[in-house]
Amino acid sequence: MAAEVDDRERSIFYISDGTGITAETIGHSVLTQFDGVRFKTQRLPFVNNEVRARAAVDSIQKAQRATGQRAIVVNTVIDPGLSSILSESGALMLDVFAPFIGPLEQELGCLRTSHVGRAHAITADYEARINATNYTLAHDDGYDVNFSDAEVILVGVSRSGKTPTCLYLALQYGVRAANYPLIPEDLEGERLPARLLPYKANLHGLTIDPQRLSQIRSERRANSRYASIEQCRHEVSVVEQLFEREGIPYLSTTHTSIEEIASKVMQSLGMNRQMY
Amino acid sequence: MAAEVDDRERSIFYISDGTGITAETIGHSVLTQFDGVRFKTQRLPFVNNEVRARAAVDSIQKAQRATGQRAIVVNTVIDPGLSSILSESGALMLDVFAPFIGPLEQELGCLRTSHVGRAHAITADYEARINATNYTLAHDDGYDVNFSDAEVILVGVSRSGKTPTCLYLALQYGVRAANYPLIPEDLEGERLPARLLPYKANLHGLTIDPQRLSQIRSERRANSRYASIEQCRHEVSVVEQLFEREGIPYLSTTHTSIEEIASKVMQSLGMNRQMY
Repeated sequence: MAAEVDDRERSIFYISDGTGITAETIGHSVLTQFDGVRFKTQRLPFVNNEVRARAAVDSIQKAQRATGQRAIVVNTVIDPGLSSILSESGALMLDVFAPFIGPLEQELGCLRTSHVGRAHAITADYEARINATNYTLAHDDGYDVNFSDAEVILVGVSRSGKTPTCLYLALQYGVRAANYPLIPEDLEGERLPARLLPYKANLHGLTIDPQRLSQIRSERRANSRYASIEQCRHEVSVVEQLFEREGIPYLSTTHTSIEEIASKVMQSLGMNRQMY
Repeated sequence: MAAEVDDRERSIFYISDGTGITAETIGHSVLTQFDGVRFKTQRLPFVNNEVRARAAVDSIQKAQRATGQRAIVVNTVIDPGLSSILSESGALMLDVFAPFIGPLEQELGCLRTSHVGRAHAITADYEARINATNYTLAHDDGYDVNFSDAEVILVGVSRSGKTPTCLYLALQYGVRAANYPLIPEDLEGERLPARLLPYKANLHGLTIDPQRLSQIRSERRANSRYASIEQCRHEVSVVEQLFEREGIPYLSTTHTSIEEIASKVMQSLGMNRQMY
């Protein structure tokens, strides 16, 4: 059917009575399965009353006139009255929750309670998440920090992806994630730094392709020894040998998104934490 | 039907050939609509071959024997063969993508291409996200920083929620988010600090209930003037007057999740950024 594919951009609207994160997450996952189509996405959050629903309809219809094509609405608005207004736009309506509610009501033997925007509600766990984020900021690339409260300690050479992964683990999963950069001095002895030894069960290694590392480091300090391909090759090689010898699980961040790294680290350390 | 609700914990499995983030996001959103039921959730990521699918079936059946109840599987595994193995567990299978594929194939006039775990693929945008995170870390609570590259500058009193929100904006949306803490010295003049004036269009204020602020600050410095309710009341009051007088949009973080704050800030500043 490839010949029939329209090459104009297709307008996608993620519409929610809350933040729109659920609508965008599933919409993005579904749309990436349609390779050949170009999408132009727009998020309309907090559509929780009639005025905003009618404003959304205006936006959709404007996009439809501009592109000459029907828009697609990925909808998590729970109120049926508001969803009904949205459908007046003439767009293809994809209701994210509808397919699951019936089977779940039957399986659980109770009806759903229609609250608006509950997915990211403030709960008792919420403070733990902010505390984890503060913990991670205070234990980022830290030499003089105490690791005894860390649930995860990421180790790896400088610029191997430790900091973004730690912040993601803290913000999304409330994990107290610290990191320790293995600097050349640490690697000379070819043994794990003594201060990490008591926490070996919580260590996870990150490694990276030396070429990519050299490129990343060059953006910080061009033409430095630190960024040279020889230095990067040496550090990565010594660190990988260290991980192998000490039995520390590790993965390469070179072609891995933050989400994948975080998910794999938690899986490897046997952590089952809920997302916020 | 409330009397029929079973009070045993119900086992939920989020199963994916990738990170499981999409499955958990929609599953969590749907399950929060069932108030009376207690759920025990488990994420099984990277189920991308038959061995892992059979291991997942074992885990599901073990949970079903332990609870004496049918488990519920929220499934984003794309390969039909693997999904078929999973369904041998006898659990209620909720396929996240299935309801959307048919209508989209018809609307777009093309078939989906079944790739595995594409939602968080590394793209050209990926580096922008890491760069935004590094930018935000370097521009956190910064007095001596240059704000000219900031897309958002959050302003508010110390501990009003600026840092976690900035990190979330950077990690999830690739937004270069800086923040500037309004300290008592800034507030004496009752005018916006001069160095923020050139960037007024990118400013967004955060405020917070003084009682809550006092509680948060007390965890850091108990019995300090900084944490006293009088000081918190004074700072919050002066800052809110400043926001009003200068026409800076602001919101209260007291009962607002990071996701909601981030979403509202972007909406208020007219930013339409895709999530990673």
